[in-house]
Amino acid sequence: MKTLILVRHGESAWNKLNLFTGWTDVDLTEAGIKEAYEAGRLLKAEGYSPELCFTSYLKRAVKTLNQMLDAMDMDWLPVQKSWRLNEKSYGAIQGLNKADTAAKYGDDQVLLWRRSFDVQPPALDMNDERSPRLDPRYNEIPDNLIPLTESLKDTIERLMPYYRGTILPAFDNRNTLLVVAHGNSLRGIVKELKGMSNDEIIKFNLPTAVPYVFQFDDRMQLQRDFFLGDQEEIAHKMQSVANQAKKK
Amino acid sequence: MKTLILVRHGESAWNKLNLFTGWTDVDLTEAGIKEAYEAGRLLKAEGYSPELCFTSYLKRAVKTLNQMLDAMDMDWLPVQKSWRLNEKSYGAIQGLNKADTAAKYGDDQVLLWRRSFDVQPPALDMNDERSPRLDPRYNEIPDNLIPLTESLKDTIERLMPYYRGTILPAFDNRNTLLVVAHGNSLRGIVKELKGMSNDEIIKFNLPTAVPYVFQFDDRMQLQRDFFLGDQEEIAHKMQSVANQAKKK
Repeated sequence: MKTLILVRHGESAWNKLNLFTGWTDVDLTEAGIKEAYEAGRLLKAEGYSPELCFTSYLKRAVKTLNQMLDAMDMDWLPVQKSWRLNEKSYGAIQGLNKADTAAKYGDDQVLLWRRSFDVQPPALDMNDERSPRLDPRYNEIPDNLIPLTESLKDTIERLMPYYRGTILPAFDNRNTLLVVAHGNSLRGIVKELKGMSNDEIIKFNLPTAVPYVFQFDDRMQLQRDFFLGDQEEIAHKMQSVANQAKKK
Repeated sequence: MKTLILVRHGESAWNKLNLFTGWTDVDLTEAGIKEAYEAGRLLKAEGYSPELCFTSYLKRAVKTLNQMLDAMDMDWLPVQKSWRLNEKSYGAIQGLNKADTAAKYGDDQVLLWRRSFDVQPPALDMNDERSPRLDPRYNEIPDNLIPLTESLKDTIERLMPYYRGTILPAFDNRNTLLVVAHGNSLRGIVKELKGMSNDEIIKFNLPTAVPYVFQFDDRMQLQRDFFLGDQEEIAHKMQSVANQAKKK
């Protein structure tokens, strides 16, 4: 049996402030650190033992993974980081408050920017200080691949070469892989694995710091998928993510 | 110019208890976490910008590196972990108190086990619960390469293939590398770089969580090496490591 475990990073400072984050490299909150550690503790208690881990270039994901590895007493596990696992770029609305943005542009417009499959938020100017093209961590990536804004469709398209070319092939000589990333990059993987339509994936809200386990047979046919942990708490977490874009 | 930065992990729980640690996977103390973070802060303040990091399979080194990366705001940097960077194996004396061991066997015998170039401490039994052959993290390594005890000479011999085959070649397309490891594995690199004799390297004590910077010209000829930080504090740290094996 092969097992893929997906985990969305714990609460970040901007989740808490209800700001659009995207590629902004904000830190975890204390609560985020704790829920990340708890996710690792849970995986260990349930007997999961990943052999290779993947995460993004953003510290809220890297540090969620570090906390999980520490809780599992597996700090030594190999980790591969890739910008292709980064969150969806929110372009020029990065740093804006979600509720304020909804009040100004209307729930419908904000919901389009957040939850439409192929509508992009306004793009960052190439020389905006928030532009990833000015960030040395992305130096090795050709400019035309570094997004200045993204729809969910764009996010999935830049994720897929990494998912298909690096993550899936790692199952050739391993049984269990762990991916710690972001709400929208993980949506790409979930959509692919569950064969969801564009509409279905838009409505699907991944809870923070909850291990989402996919089990496959040896021919990589999906057998089962489930969230690990208290199911009521998980439902509550999924609802609170869905509510974030509404006016307050 | 090429720059290699070596950092010995911060204070561990067993450093504090004055126990022989070796391959035992003990955690950092609060003080160890703080000095690790401070080492990263210092590197950032002095303008160092590593492009690739190396560390061991032991959490006191991994977590020192994680703290440093976080202080440098470079959590995204690629990290390669290898058992070849692990601390010298102290075999069957792992877990024993250094001062007690010195009281029982004499300073001279303990100094031989700690600081001779080629005398090994008594070996672990292959089925000892402390044996790394029973630890899944070393599953991929052939049994005959996994040490049950080591002299400093042994430690250097298993380190060198990784240093020469993986770390040095990484300079081909990078200028700055960071290695976070252990007192004895780093001695191997320092001995090689400084052309020290066996006697010289035995007397050389690396302070914890202090960046040791080696600068090379483009043909990899060593130009300069120095410790980064308050020189008086560093001298004090080196002396306190040297005193650890003495009776108390």
